[in-house]
Amino acid sequence: MPRYALKIEYDGAPFAGWQRQADQPSAQEAIETALERLEPGPHRIAAAGRTDAGVHATGQVAHADLAKDWDPFRLAEALNYHLRPAPVAILACAQVPEEFHARFSARERRYLFRLVQRRAPMTHERGLVWHVRNELDLEAMRAGAAHLVGHHDFTTFRSTLCQSNSPVKTLDEIRIEGLEIPHGREFRFHLRARSFLHNQVRSIVGTLERVGAGSWAPDRVASALAARDRAACGPVSPPQGLYLCGVDYPTDPFA
Amino acid sequence: MPRYALKIEYDGAPFAGWQRQADQPSAQEAIETALERLEPGPHRIAAAGRTDAGVHATGQVAHADLAKDWDPFRLAEALNYHLRPAPVAILACAQVPEEFHARFSARERRYLFRLVQRRAPMTHERGLVWHVRNELDLEAMRAGAAHLVGHHDFTTFRSTLCQSNSPVKTLDEIRIEGLEIPHGREFRFHLRARSFLHNQVRSIVGTLERVGAGSWAPDRVASALAARDRAACGPVSPPQGLYLCGVDYPTDPFA
Repeated sequence: MPRYALKIEYDGAPFAGWQRQADQPSAQEAIETALERLEPGPHRIAAAGRTDAGVHATGQVAHADLAKDWDPFRLAEALNYHLRPAPVAILACAQVPEEFHARFSARERRYLFRLVQRRAPMTHERGLVWHVRNELDLEAMRAGAAHLVGHHDFTTFRSTLCQSNSPVKTLDEIRIEGLEIPHGREFRFHLRARSFLHNQVRSIVGTLERVGAGSWAPDRVASALAARDRAACGPVSPPQGLYLCGVDYPTDPFA
Repeated sequence: MPRYALKIEYDGAPFAGWQRQADQPSAQEAIETALERLEPGPHRIAAAGRTDAGVHATGQVAHADLAKDWDPFRLAEALNYHLRPAPVAILACAQVPEEFHARFSARERRYLFRLVQRRAPMTHERGLVWHVRNELDLEAMRAGAAHLVGHHDFTTFRSTLCQSNSPVKTLDEIRIEGLEIPHGREFRFHLRARSFLHNQVRSIVGTLERVGAGSWAPDRVASALAARDRAACGPVSPPQGLYLCGVDYPTDPFA
């Protein structure tokens, strides 16, 4: 059976997350249902990142095994047709070797978190960013974030529901951009790692927001990390600012 | 009665347009209803641009007369509170002289039209851009647009419902940006004029899209304009890519 890699964008709002669930809509189910329109099912696809309810993707990657030899462009077009009206889009499609596994072959995941600070409520970007009203200190957030980069036990920054065998991960980068926007400021947090723990990005961003607001000194991030205690974490940020924006493989399947 | 200028952002999707109507929701009604929560009404506010159903604003300006002397910051905060959950936000508020009129004092309106060209359907920006699948030639659209700049009879490019006394207007600028985006391209049309005719921007953008697609030679825009005949216009673009993004006055009320 030929295997295909899919690069996927979705709006997380209507979904209980990426992963298929018995009684709630998921992005995975939307794509599997579209695949069943093309070839009799059931289809089960595997993805690089299992995003939570409300979390978005602009570069999720999944793989699917199909019976027929599909032209990848035609396959993407047919899936997009059958995905309507769900806010899920196949951005790219490629045939890949049977050893390719969207989750296990991945060597880097990249997340973006968008936080908008302004007095007025959001209109067009409601559901697409985390909106806060208080001013945030970019340099303080950068100083706090610097404590988290590297190889650490991230017990403080993972959900108690996290199923990962180990809380030890290497966070390769946290880069925070500060953009001037009309009547406010947008902060973009870019995070890179081989893999992430459950709720790790939202736990980090929620904690750094407290640093930016002045409630936490930047050094408190270091002691929270060292505590290896979930109770030492700041508040977890809401999901709607988070985007899984890219996955890297030893060979880019879409190149 | 002190007069206040309001700078307003809204998502046009849920509204039948800016203007208050007997039986359909409008952005004007949303704000007037919020004003009535602050001071007994009825309130009637006047705006710089009467946007159509589905058209957005990031810089609409309206004025309101109130009985009480409001601190402008507090007035904006109170209106935003009462506007919830409508996707309408007061970005700025200022007390203005009683001669100030949001519509009649305006000397320039600026519109942005966002057009995204890619194969895959839109997800996060659905309802916020016009999505087309065919590739567009930026230089051809710029050549077509150049014919429209200046003082012209725009009969071809206005709705037959337009109530303006004269079809003669001066279009000060059409600037078209081409931005590379993942898996496609975004075109941003920036238009500036003292005032616009009904459906003028959407008639122009819809016509220029035909030029970009190669269906129209750029020179056909000149002959369509010269025809002074609505039937010579290209298709009118859909509303969801259009944003009223700014209004200029002899003195900036929000400076």
